[in-house]
Amino acid sequence: MSSIFEGFLSAPEALLSFGDRAFVQAMLRFEASLARAQASVGLIPESSAQSIIGTCKVELFDTAKIVRESPRAGSLAIPLVKSLKETVGLFNPQAVAHVHFGCTSQDAIDTAMALVTRDALDLIEQDVRQSAGALLALATLHARTPMLARTLMQPASVISFGFKCVAWAAPLVRSLKRLRAAAPNALQLQLGGTVGTLSSMNGKGARVSELMAQDLGLTLAPMSWHTQRDEWVALGCELGLLTGSLGKIARDIVLMSQFEVGEVAEEVELGRGGPPNMPHKHNPVASMVAIAASQRVPQRVAALLAVMPQEHERAAGAWQAELAEWPQLVMSAHGAARAMAQALPALQVNPQRMRSNIDAVAASLPKAVAAEWFNANLVEHAADITALQLMVLKNGFS
Amino acid sequence: MSSIFEGFLSAPEALLSFGDRAFVQAMLRFEASLARAQASVGLIPESSAQSIIGTCKVELFDTAKIVRESPRAGSLAIPLVKSLKETVGLFNPQAVAHVHFGCTSQDAIDTAMALVTRDALDLIEQDVRQSAGALLALATLHARTPMLARTLMQPASVISFGFKCVAWAAPLVRSLKRLRAAAPNALQLQLGGTVGTLSSMNGKGARVSELMAQDLGLTLAPMSWHTQRDEWVALGCELGLLTGSLGKIARDIVLMSQFEVGEVAEEVELGRGGPPNMPHKHNPVASMVAIAASQRVPQRVAALLAVMPQEHERAAGAWQAELAEWPQLVMSAHGAARAMAQALPALQVNPQRMRSNIDAVAASLPKAVAAEWFNANLVEHAADITALQLMVLKNGFS
Amino acid sequence: MSSIFEGFLSAPEALLSFGDRAFVQAMLRFEASLARAQASVGLIPESSAQSIIGTCKVELFDTAKIVRESPRAGSLAIPLVKSLKETVGLFNPQAVAHVHFGCTSQDAIDTAMALVTRDALDLIEQDVRQSAGALLALATLHARTPMLARTLMQPASVISFGFKCVAWAAPLVRSLKRLRAAAPNALQLQLGGTVGTLSSMNGKGARVSELMAQDLGLTLAPMSWHTQRDEWVALGCELGLLTGSLGKIARDIVLMSQFEVGEVAEEVELGRGGPPNMPHKHNPVASMVAIAASQRVPQRVAALLAVMPQEHERAAGAWQAELAEWPQLVMSAHGAARAMAQALPALQVNPQRMRSNIDAVAASLPKAVAAEWFNANLVEHAADITALQLMVLKNGFS
Amino acid sequence: MSSIFEGFLSAPEALLSFGDRAFVQAMLRFEASLARAQASVGLIPESSAQSIIGTCKVELFDTAKIVRESPRAGSLAIPLVKSLKETVGLFNPQAVAHVHFGCTSQDAIDTAMALVTRDALDLIEQDVRQSAGALLALATLHARTPMLARTLMQPASVISFGFKCVAWAAPLVRSLKRLRAAAPNALQLQLGGTVGTLSSMNGKGARVSELMAQDLGLTLAPMSWHTQRDEWVALGCELGLLTGSLGKIARDIVLMSQFEVGEVAEEVELGRGGPPNMPHKHNPVASMVAIAASQRVPQRVAALLAVMPQEHERAAGAWQAELAEWPQLVMSAHGAARAMAQALPALQVNPQRMRSNIDAVAASLPKAVAAEWFNANLVEHAADITALQLMVLKNGFS
Repeated sequence: MSSIFEGFLSAPEALLSFGDRAFVQAMLRFEASLARAQASVGLIPESSAQSIIGTCKVELFDTAKIVRESPRAGSLAIPLVKSLKETVGLFNPQAVAHVHFGCTSQDAIDTAMALVTRDALDLIEQDVRQSAGALLALATLHARTPMLARTLMQPASVISFGFKCVAWAAPLVRSLKRLRAAAPNALQLQLGGTVGTLSSMNGKGARVSELMAQDLGLTLAPMSWHTQRDEWVALGCELGLLTGSLGKIARDIVLMSQFEVGEVAEEVELGRGGPPNMPHKHNPVASMVAIAASQRVPQRVAALLAVMPQEHERAAGAWQAELAEWPQLVMSAHGAARAMAQALPALQVNPQRMRSNIDAVAASLPKAVAAEWFNANLVEHAADITALQLMVLKNGFS
Repeated sequence: MSSIFEGFLSAPEALLSFGDRAFVQAMLRFEASLARAQASVGLIPESSAQSIIGTCKVELFDTAKIVRESPRAGSLAIPLVKSLKETVGLFNPQAVAHVHFGCTSQDAIDTAMALVTRDALDLIEQDVRQSAGALLALATLHARTPMLARTLMQPASVISFGFKCVAWAAPLVRSLKRLRAAAPNALQLQLGGTVGTLSSMNGKGARVSELMAQDLGLTLAPMSWHTQRDEWVALGCELGLLTGSLGKIARDIVLMSQFEVGEVAEEVELGRGGPPNMPHKHNPVASMVAIAASQRVPQRVAALLAVMPQEHERAAGAWQAELAEWPQLVMSAHGAARAMAQALPALQVNPQRMRSNIDAVAASLPKAVAAEWFNANLVEHAADITALQLMVLKNGFS
Repeated sequence: MSSIFEGFLSAPEALLSFGDRAFVQAMLRFEASLARAQASVGLIPESSAQSIIGTCKVELFDTAKIVRESPRAGSLAIPLVKSLKETVGLFNPQAVAHVHFGCTSQDAIDTAMALVTRDALDLIEQDVRQSAGALLALATLHARTPMLARTLMQPASVISFGFKCVAWAAPLVRSLKRLRAAAPNALQLQLGGTVGTLSSMNGKGARVSELMAQDLGLTLAPMSWHTQRDEWVALGCELGLLTGSLGKIARDIVLMSQFEVGEVAEEVELGRGGPPNMPHKHNPVASMVAIAASQRVPQRVAALLAVMPQEHERAAGAWQAELAEWPQLVMSAHGAARAMAQALPALQVNPQRMRSNIDAVAASLPKAVAAEWFNANLVEHAADITALQLMVLKNGFS
Repeated sequence: MSSIFEGFLSAPEALLSFGDRAFVQAMLRFEASLARAQASVGLIPESSAQSIIGTCKVELFDTAKIVRESPRAGSLAIPLVKSLKETVGLFNPQAVAHVHFGCTSQDAIDTAMALVTRDALDLIEQDVRQSAGALLALATLHARTPMLARTLMQPASVISFGFKCVAWAAPLVRSLKRLRAAAPNALQLQLGGTVGTLSSMNGKGARVSELMAQDLGLTLAPMSWHTQRDEWVALGCELGLLTGSLGKIARDIVLMSQFEVGEVAEEVELGRGGPPNMPHKHNPVASMVAIAASQRVPQRVAALLAVMPQEHERAAGAWQAELAEWPQLVMSAHGAARAMAQALPALQVNPQRMRSNIDAVAASLPKAVAAEWFNANLVEHAADITALQLMVLKNGFS
């Protein structure tokens, strides 16, 4: 599908996390875990569970066929379960009735989405930590490197580059903290059966849920969240906020990288970014990726919020829309996180240009004004805040 | 302005919170608090502070004129500060230079927005608590009242109305909890001066900030958040999530209120909702308001996220866009909260119709299937979960 | 209401167009026109029509009270019609039954919205013409003024400023053309009665519609568009496109106005934009307004599109949401149009800086490359296209 | 990539149109057409053109590798052109310098996107025609079939099902017309060279453009539209409007398909939609797909509008974001069009239930009111409008 355009803005690992194969595998993990738990509480025979668990291996399935059949079935899980039943039936016909027992498609799909999202979140956290670490190092190094502060895109006064770096880093550190709070609430087992009551599980639904949550490392939801998506969408909002903060850094870098400004530059890989006949061109490709993400992600979050009013016990359209929007949100956020994690540790800083840009403003001012406008105190104030912030952020960070 | 259409979907108190007068008053609270703190640390004379504080009374100002002059000035705070200086100057000419000392417009405006938002959040919390309370009461009462569960807008199986009510209530209780976590992070003093370093405050900026935060009851931000909007927008996201959860309840109520379904009805005030020549028409007006909000609010959140990449130390456009979107987000959320707080405690429930709707489905099934399809166990399962959830939620709630 | 933040980004005339008074007046125009048409076809007595028409004067109504009562009534038109009936009844009790005869609230409100929108569109067209005219003049003047072309925010090659100006102007001229096509389709009379069939008008509905459309200068819709909003939202999309094109110009101006670039500047009014202690600061306030609009308007369009699936013959929430979003869309678009119409005719252009920015790039290149990189041919190519485009656009424009 | 979730909501042909292979092929069509045109005007030797054209066959390229290398290159066209040059060089080393001569990546990519979009539009038009045709047939058949009109989700009065069908059909017919107007303006050749002036083409750029536009069947743009996206996004808006109109039909069908309403049903394919143990369940799967699309598409349009302010002569992020959003918009719109084109011709209509739903409302009314509330005239009025509309629409349609 549209990987040709998405792939450009996403990192390969995230593409894999949400790939067809990974998702089918995650659904199979759900089915295996279900069988294990149901056997353990006596809902299905141990021998059936063994057959099911043994069959829940992605390499035994024709992923492409499952994807192909899903539109007609109206659900991704239906052809998977059908295929699983067929394969289980080859070895153990009695076990067929115990496949996906007491479950609904949404149970398998929501849980699988939580599993693959968890993997992607790990990647995102790692990248954000790398960016934040790089920025704190730059802040330390440049706590007293004077540069122009700019408001409404005009020079306003003087700060230090270190001050700018802690201001960039702080929202990333806060995002890590908020993501760590939101993730466990969102990464929940979904297990409700047809309408959320696990009515086919003979009173043992709660115990099955506990065992599965433990087995899969997911949070045990207090009740089915088939049409109560707030905790899940709250995680989506956090990814939106993170991408916004990354976009702000990228926007500033692109502006500071302009030829006429020249204060920073993304490291230029050989053969990347600039065309051979324009050696002066240092295209800020990583920042461009983060900016693109920061322009797309708000619309993904809006879509998730807009489909929250899901009808009754399973929505007609809203849930399916959410399913399609979610991976793109996570992949875009990850694309931004990865791009900045690559760019920031190698950012080229040019203190001379920072200084000459200040001097040019000063030169444009009447002498008396200029003296007042730029003085050492300004940098000292910025450095003081930088030092304080560095202390605070390093604490929050490690 | 467009109050004629907004007003229809918002509650009067929220309209007042974000009205011109309330906002000018909040900016004046900022200026008074600033003067008080700066006098206390010796940055400005006590006599100047007294003059400024004494003048910071909204009734002394021509609010309409300030609003009228703001576009030309490019900021709302500029005409206010000008007006404040003029008035202060009439009594105490020396104090004029001490008005708004060392500050920037954004400091006054962001802080004022935090103050008026705090008032609106109190109203929202109160309304959500009322809705949640009403739903928990309904859940208790109807834990065993059988009703159809519906998936993809078709009857699926049987639950109880109490089960549905706890499912509605749970996200509201979670929203209250998340709002209480997000609010203090968002409701921060903004005090950065021209470029975030409080460089004119002679090293006393940190102390001034502490005093003002305490005085105004706002959180002391670790550093200026002029272009780092994550905590602020995170609160906006929470309001988006809340509105989504309210919209889900409203959507279900509208569906259950259909003449052909008839399971619930909003209480009909005399003269409200239905036209006189259609006595059968019970328009679900409150739910309509919540639905409208749930369709508008996601776009407000998207706007807030989209303008997060604010350039340098103050954005050219993005911050101004955020300012205009924010009140509408809060007012829409409040409109939804208020509408449901009015509708839910008075919701008319019709267990007979719930039962006859089940029976009609059963009658459409082959006899053998019907017997299996609907049995007392289904309601028991729903009642069990309801009881458990009620316990959990009542804890979280009080 | 939130005029304090909106007003900052909108033009006063647009605020008035969508103000409470203007809207009530527009609804009264609908009611008067209806009575006139119905009397003319014999549906109501001429004497009733005279009484109604004579009473449909906005100064006779308590606008604030109508606004205040609308939430409870669930519609803006209900308290207006009630008030109109009361006043008519004072003079001519028999006419009361002939007020708003055979109509529904949505008829009055949609038609009124079309009327006030038409006024706002006139203002917008006028402003866009002014911007386009100013750009074509600049293009003529600067067809051969060399300047840097920039891709990915890095210098790429050389064009002329005139070339840039025609590229800015072309989408505005196209918008004028598309708006002129979309407006008549959108500015339609709404007249359907309760459910779109004008069933109370005794077979004379079609004739009444014709007369009213002619009287009000609106297009005669082929049938009621209560829940078929495509032509209306298509006009909203056009305003979104226009605002995007204005935002592109504003974004470029802000970038070219940077102190380090210095190629253009908005004219600085006395006391506007820059603070007194920063005389170097030329804040691009008009562009800032257009940028803010270009960030807000896409979300308004998304809201309009998202509420298109309106249920049955009148939606429960979706229409009301559309009503609230619409004026803000139009006002934002107008705010952008007005801001650029003020800025562009007075834009200060600095060909010396354009040239020195080119020279600085050339100086950074190896000599052989530099010679090839910048030569007179580049400007000639740009001038050729500019000349051709000027011809095309001037045709399309006048 | 995420085809597993997208695929569910899109039609296979559209997935193919925007697949990696189709897109690489479209870029190769651009390169071949460019070489042909440039040889024809003497810019490159005929022998080079022959070598290039002969090599522009998708089966000669490693599509996956090109996709894989694009992120590092910062553009999709860069690895393609590199690969094309390598292959051409094997046969005709002199021709290498004539590959992609005087062009920029965006020229190839925008043109390729126009080509694949044209294919998808054909599919969409075909499907919409099928839906409109089916609705007009239903309208003819049911012009006098009485059914409830519903406002605010409550029974209001009586119309005919035919009236509802023409109301559904009209926006589709209008969409076809507007799409046919918008498509040629949007489906333009992109050819500007590095910065839009075709400066390397030695004054022959205009002639090359003409030949290529003719060759590829695309509109000749008056000038490069690298950062002037209004006509392109206008087409996106049209797809948004179409999807909204389809979503309205789908929403109504889902509501009318409720068990308690039972007025229409999507035809149930064997093994599709409903689970075996719930034979009463007729899941409206096609409408669900259209609803999901109508909830996602507005956010795609918002993204396109939001990235219109593209910086200077090529944006840093905004264009790349547009590229990624576009295919999803078209595929979602097509998914909705296809779903309804399958559902509408086979829609099962139940006039008995339509009638009994009316009778139930009448039975709930006081007798005198009931007699007035429902009478034959209502259906006649609806039938009259239906007949008139059928005439109008059939004209517009064929």
